[in-house]
Amino acid sequence: MASTIHIPDLIQKKRDGGTHTRQELETLILGFTRGEVPDYQVSAWLMAVFLKGMTAQETADMTLVMAESGDQMNLGDLPKTVDKHSTGGVGDKTSLILTPMLAALGLTVAKMSGRGLAHTGGTIDKLESIPNWTPELSEERFIEQAREIGLSLVGQSKALAPADGKLYALRDVTATVACLPLIASSIMSKKLASGAHTIVLDVKVGAGAFMTTLDAGRELARAMVDIGTHAGRQVRAVLTDMDTPLGHMAGNSLEVLEALDTLRGHGPHDLTELCVALAVEALAAYGEDPQQAEARARATLQDGSALAKFRAFVAAQGGDASYVDDPNKFDIAAGRAEVTAPTDGFIGGIDALSVGRAVLALGGGRERKGEAIDHGVGVELLKKPSEAVKAGEAVMRLYHRDGRGLEAALKLLQDGLSISPSAPQVHPLILDRVN
Amino acid sequence: MASTIHIPDLIQKKRDGGTHTRQELETLILGFTRGEVPDYQVSAWLMAVFLKGMTAQETADMTLVMAESGDQMNLGDLPKTVDKHSTGGVGDKTSLILTPMLAALGLTVAKMSGRGLAHTGGTIDKLESIPNWTPELSEERFIEQAREIGLSLVGQSKALAPADGKLYALRDVTATVACLPLIASSIMSKKLASGAHTIVLDVKVGAGAFMTTLDAGRELARAMVDIGTHAGRQVRAVLTDMDTPLGHMAGNSLEVLEALDTLRGHGPHDLTELCVALAVEALAAYGEDPQQAEARARATLQDGSALAKFRAFVAAQGGDASYVDDPNKFDIAAGRAEVTAPTDGFIGGIDALSVGRAVLALGGGRERKGEAIDHGVGVELLKKPSEAVKAGEAVMRLYHRDGRGLEAALKLLQDGLSISPSAPQVHPLILDRVN
Repeated sequence: MASTIHIPDLIQKKRDGGTHTRQELETLILGFTRGEVPDYQVSAWLMAVFLKGMTAQETADMTLVMAESGDQMNLGDLPKTVDKHSTGGVGDKTSLILTPMLAALGLTVAKMSGRGLAHTGGTIDKLESIPNWTPELSEERFIEQAREIGLSLVGQSKALAPADGKLYALRDVTATVACLPLIASSIMSKKLASGAHTIVLDVKVGAGAFMTTLDAGRELARAMVDIGTHAGRQVRAVLTDMDTPLGHMAGNSLEVLEALDTLRGHGPHDLTELCVALAVEALAAYGEDPQQAEARARATLQDGSALAKFRAFVAAQGGDASYVDDPNKFDIAAGRAEVTAPTDGFIGGIDALSVGRAVLALGGGRERKGEAIDHGVGVELLKKPSEAVKAGEAVMRLYHRDGRGLEAALKLLQDGLSISPSAPQVHPLILDRVN
Repeated sequence: MASTIHIPDLIQKKRDGGTHTRQELETLILGFTRGEVPDYQVSAWLMAVFLKGMTAQETADMTLVMAESGDQMNLGDLPKTVDKHSTGGVGDKTSLILTPMLAALGLTVAKMSGRGLAHTGGTIDKLESIPNWTPELSEERFIEQAREIGLSLVGQSKALAPADGKLYALRDVTATVACLPLIASSIMSKKLASGAHTIVLDVKVGAGAFMTTLDAGRELARAMVDIGTHAGRQVRAVLTDMDTPLGHMAGNSLEVLEALDTLRGHGPHDLTELCVALAVEALAAYGEDPQQAEARARATLQDGSALAKFRAFVAAQGGDASYVDDPNKFDIAAGRAEVTAPTDGFIGGIDALSVGRAVLALGGGRERKGEAIDHGVGVELLKKPSEAVKAGEAVMRLYHRDGRGLEAALKLLQDGLSISPSAPQVHPLILDRVN
């Protein structure tokens, strides 16, 4: 309260292209979080940041200030901790597969995950497809389970990086969201507060992603890796193509089924490769040779060790582990409908956003926080880009509950599908790595 | 309320260097004035304006929207109406002299003036040195007096351009004050709402002024003239040097005495020349030849016609007109003290801001709105820049009331005084004209 720093002077400094000290950022960000610095001053400052930028050191300092604005997880003496973050995607069930792989590889995942909102899914919702599995653990149990199994996964605590939530709400209504240092610090503040030593990032690039170009994705990855380095963490990023949903399934139970297939070594190629690539980054962060790391990562999907970790994890958090071994137990919606190709040709694109919105329309997602969802509905991609199709051939299958939202979902999927006369060039899944 | 314009889209447009339509500015400015658009969105937008600028058309549109945000004076069929604005100064008693000159020249001044705050004085405070003079007139009386005498002068109504007051308060705490289109629209919105056809502007340039360089002053003058042109008014600006206070007196009654001297043709050279120059601009705006205008303007100070108008104006607003003819009646504080030259040399500079603050310290100004002031205290400059002085010779005389604030005032004036070994170059008073 007795700060001698005058807020308009700080706004003016950034307005004129200056560089903030850590103490100045604390005055602004912590003052705002405590309600002492009013939103109208912070929004003017955010616009100045948007237009004048921040140095790597400033961005790192800001992230640390945000990370320290609330509770911070103390993972204590857990060995080789790893966290993972994806910049968002449709049908992205990577965490369901990667985290037990990492546990099987001898690393420790004690992680917080989110729920889905709008067209994006959330890991917690997906896991709740398994009866009685709970995302609520005491902090002691959370740590103990991670020590015993190598994997524990809980819902996001509101007390982590509260500055981020307040800043994001203000950015959202002042046209200051799409700003690299602000995006990077928002993501990384929560990851730093979550306590893991190593953080692997999956930065999505493409039409369906926040970063639409590879260059923009590289910049974001570089900013986040730099923040981690400044904060004494190991951060490694993989840039991945996000023009099309990952794997074939979108929808909560359907994605768990696909994850289980992958953990058995029978997953779709793109999904398997991404999980292996992210596991390699995590092992490399702990000094393992990449080639050896890749072989060991692949082996966890062949020898049943990742599946075993997943089974133990589900059981430890109260879930019915019999579901892990008997996919028929999942309550998949009985209704079926198909989207067919309007002409002969090749699949040009399946818009990921349309698929996400279709799942939402079918009842598999929520518009507002706290809404209940139907875990059994979803969309299956029967064809992926560049595959040949005949007119009338089924391209996507919808799993619906008594027709709820079906019309809207069909329209979204039809609009998101393009058929090309020739096979389109398909981007590689892994576009680049930054570390 | 049912606006279809989304505020974040408007902020984004300016953020990205776009140009607003008049309707967009109405949505923002009028919505903010009505309390519908929150301050945190407007402050982000103001910062975007600060960093991305506004076109001349946008600035004019914004000014008109602000002018139309509240009441607007209707000066109706009053002949040849003139308003005057100064960008602020110390010891600036120009309005006291210029307005009766304009009335004597056949123009009509129906004007609102302000009170002093901090180190700047206000015309209303100065006139209240004359017992019973009142700044409160009904609107009908205000118009009728202007028709009869050619001059009426009242306090500022809060209902004029309320958007400006709200925007200024927000700019003041978000480092968005020093922005040309925002300064120009702030000044001009009140002038446009005040209704005069012709507006003469005195743009101060120099160390004691808001615009410290001639180029910056020219830009501001150009922006204000352009706004007036867009709004169908005649606006003419004079750029004047403001390194040193105008004339010799600073303090309410002292300035009225100096104004009366000037109206009798015995005023200080700089003050007389500025009043003549501003009167010439007003006449030129109504088509008069500048040389003839200058001769006529000077004559009003020699033939007693301006003084007669001032006398009639004081009486019409309830003031004791005998003060106009007997300067000894003014209640000048009896205490005297002097600031002397520390060495032989030439007066290098007398900092206008220091003089303003000294008057404030002596009790002749107010820190907060509504505070009472002592009209009888002040500072007299016995020497002006470039004049030779001997060590120990008096340079300034203070008029104090029983020593109140004397120590602080003396220190301010001593600090603001510089003595040069050689005669410094003195800027001409009138630096340029813009119309």
